[in-house]
Amino acid sequence: MKKISIIGAGLVGSLLALYLNKRGYKVTLHERRPDMRKVKIPAGRSINLALSDRGWRGLQGVAIDDTIRQIGIPMTHRTMHSVDGKITTQPYGKDGQGIYAVSRGILNCTLLDLAEKGGVEIHFNQRCTGLMLTSGEMQFEHSENHQKSSHHADLIFGADGAFAASRLQLQLSTDQFNYSQRYLQHGYKELMFVAKADGSHQLEKNALHIWPRGGYMLIALPNLDGTFTVTLFFPLKGNPSFESLHNKQEVKAFFQKVFPDAVPLLHDLEEDFFHNPTGSLVTIKCAPWSFDNKLVLIGDAAHAIVPFYGQGMNCGFEDCSVLNDLLNQFADDWEKVIPEYERMRKPAADAIGELAVDNFIEMRDLVGKPEFLLRKKIEGWFSEKHPDKWIPLYTMVTFSHLPYHEAQARGKKQDAIMNEIMKMSDIENIWNSSMVENRIIDLLK
Amino acid sequence: MKKISIIGAGLVGSLLALYLNKRGYKVTLHERRPDMRKVKIPAGRSINLALSDRGWRGLQGVAIDDTIRQIGIPMTHRTMHSVDGKITTQPYGKDGQGIYAVSRGILNCTLLDLAEKGGVEIHFNQRCTGLMLTSGEMQFEHSENHQKSSHHADLIFGADGAFAASRLQLQLSTDQFNYSQRYLQHGYKELMFVAKADGSHQLEKNALHIWPRGGYMLIALPNLDGTFTVTLFFPLKGNPSFESLHNKQEVKAFFQKVFPDAVPLLHDLEEDFFHNPTGSLVTIKCAPWSFDNKLVLIGDAAHAIVPFYGQGMNCGFEDCSVLNDLLNQFADDWEKVIPEYERMRKPAADAIGELAVDNFIEMRDLVGKPEFLLRKKIEGWFSEKHPDKWIPLYTMVTFSHLPYHEAQARGKKQDAIMNEIMKMSDIENIWNSSMVENRIIDLLK
Repeated sequence: MKKISIIGAGLVGSLLALYLNKRGYKVTLHERRPDMRKVKIPAGRSINLALSDRGWRGLQGVAIDDTIRQIGIPMTHRTMHSVDGKITTQPYGKDGQGIYAVSRGILNCTLLDLAEKGGVEIHFNQRCTGLMLTSGEMQFEHSENHQKSSHHADLIFGADGAFAASRLQLQLSTDQFNYSQRYLQHGYKELMFVAKADGSHQLEKNALHIWPRGGYMLIALPNLDGTFTVTLFFPLKGNPSFESLHNKQEVKAFFQKVFPDAVPLLHDLEEDFFHNPTGSLVTIKCAPWSFDNKLVLIGDAAHAIVPFYGQGMNCGFEDCSVLNDLLNQFADDWEKVIPEYERMRKPAADAIGELAVDNFIEMRDLVGKPEFLLRKKIEGWFSEKHPDKWIPLYTMVTFSHLPYHEAQARGKKQDAIMNEIMKMSDIENIWNSSMVENRIIDLLK
Repeated sequence: MKKISIIGAGLVGSLLALYLNKRGYKVTLHERRPDMRKVKIPAGRSINLALSDRGWRGLQGVAIDDTIRQIGIPMTHRTMHSVDGKITTQPYGKDGQGIYAVSRGILNCTLLDLAEKGGVEIHFNQRCTGLMLTSGEMQFEHSENHQKSSHHADLIFGADGAFAASRLQLQLSTDQFNYSQRYLQHGYKELMFVAKADGSHQLEKNALHIWPRGGYMLIALPNLDGTFTVTLFFPLKGNPSFESLHNKQEVKAFFQKVFPDAVPLLHDLEEDFFHNPTGSLVTIKCAPWSFDNKLVLIGDAAHAIVPFYGQGMNCGFEDCSVLNDLLNQFADDWEKVIPEYERMRKPAADAIGELAVDNFIEMRDLVGKPEFLLRKKIEGWFSEKHPDKWIPLYTMVTFSHLPYHEAQARGKKQDAIMNEIMKMSDIENIWNSSMVENRIIDLLK
């Protein structure tokens, strides 16, 4: 196996190219869009990235974690803003464990630079119009001059994202391909907090800020230049919804009512609200992820998830590092590696897809409630006393390399236990007593 | 609204054309395949149809039920064949209620004849290659001479089956389209029982014959010419499976072991087994079923289901009659009709899709077991005594017009009650006692 082509030069495709190039394969990258290092990418659709442990391991494997850490901002806790301006915080882990806000653009450009420097051939403006699954021939059309071309590889990776052309080929031309795309009834809108005049942040920098409001929420992640990228997650229909806010006055009035402390920080709210597109939130599952050891799906192309656990990129990077581990284990015998990659990653991807939808409810609704805060406090307290017995679900997902489906299974069990604990009488006052401690230990048996 | 085009001239598309033509619309039908009345359709993929009450109502609405009844064979019961040749039967309903075996080909040809006679324009060999969803323009390519053409309509129906080109347009070019295709791990193979020399049937004619064997099964439905169309539902992989039977000897030996009484009746088993294609079994769900009141999906294009409840065609015909009722109710105001059609039919289609998968387990496994037979006997007995209180699920689905999702909900409740009843001690002997009767009445409260 010599020539490998990757369709899609986004985050996962670029990182995969680095891995495979390092192993000695002849790698080509084929990207639908223009070279983002040369062309200004229209803003307004990005949801900020939060790099966590799985993502870091992916970057470590090609020794670029230190480079990337320099462009990241650690966020050690969630900061919740209530309607009346009250602020509460929740640490993400213990001992200042944090997730890192990073710019998608800078990260992707860095990966492309490194790939090119390493000898990866990158073709931009190449829209994939067809794949001959048995021969390994790919057909492309140039997105500007519409010139057609074709390319051959011994193995093709589909890393072309949620609406992958590569996956569509599997849907259209193979039998027994299971597939689902499921949309949330919420969409999102990118907004922005401006920096202070001196270039510093208007809100605490090392936090992920959330304005949870039940049926919807606003979040803000810090950027290096003192701004925050802000995202409104909001129903597409109903009241209130994107449909129910008809004009600038209504938008302004709505924000003043429900996000009063955010309004003075926002860059031109009314302009951005109507100018920036409304994004969709989709979960995509499919199986199998490969065809005949010729085509393999990876990242969002195999398992697009909603952004509420901050794991989309991290999961895709973990795909890459797991694949690399398997190539080591099986000495680059792809006929063994591909089925094993699928067997390991499919249940993991299904699990994080489900957890991400679940976490939407936690973030937009529960996160601000006293009962929820107490619950997290008890979990944290018990976990600190018995780290061998209990790791909070968020910690397993974000700060460990436990397969997502194992984290999900343990999380469900712990959740059932916490339901029991929260029923104990006077729990607000006895929460850190030995009675509670022993009850949890009992229930864990 | 004047011009309506229907993509797909299968059973549902043809019946819909008859309905709309009768209402005074200018209707065109566009079919990918050649005219089946002129060209011999290759055999080997058909699963026999069983017309039941919902289907009959669909035909009544355009007054062709009497015509079709003449080509149908009533089946009043299931006949189960065990490995040791023992035969048991189960009535489908009471008082000789039956479902009708009909030939898909004859039924479809009849519908096409009637549509054409009524003034519907039918275009064959027209593969739909594109739909302009906003303008109502359809693009076609002739499947033989590859000539391209386009056609315009005020309203388009997608009746082009499980792998609808029309639905693909919704997936590819609209936002927020929920979609799933899920395959069973079983496939099917068409086989045949030959007629006696005098043209009569070798097995009892007025029955649907089943050879339930746990993980797989054989079924046989009578044809007018004395033959039976036989279908083997069988795992695609594993042992035994389509993959594990490698040659004619192995197929013959396997059939002789597990379907001994069927072997002498079969037309050239070994030849048919390897010559006929292996079919797939898929459940397709999507939402929405329409776009902008310009395109509406109907039948399998909207909700392909597996064949184990015998409801695929019946459900599609019910789509047509419900739509026609709504056109009456709203005086052909399509802007009211289309959303209401979708609101009524989507949960119904989801329900029958799930029931059909559930029924596979019942047919291939439970149907032959004494406990299951007793359970059905108790249900039948109680239902006969209290028809106002209990209608067996099969009866609600097959012999009523209760929306499928209501039937499903009542079925679940009844199932939970029967689980309790079957736990009663000595139930085999007291099954028709007043104790059991009163217990059911209690549980129903």
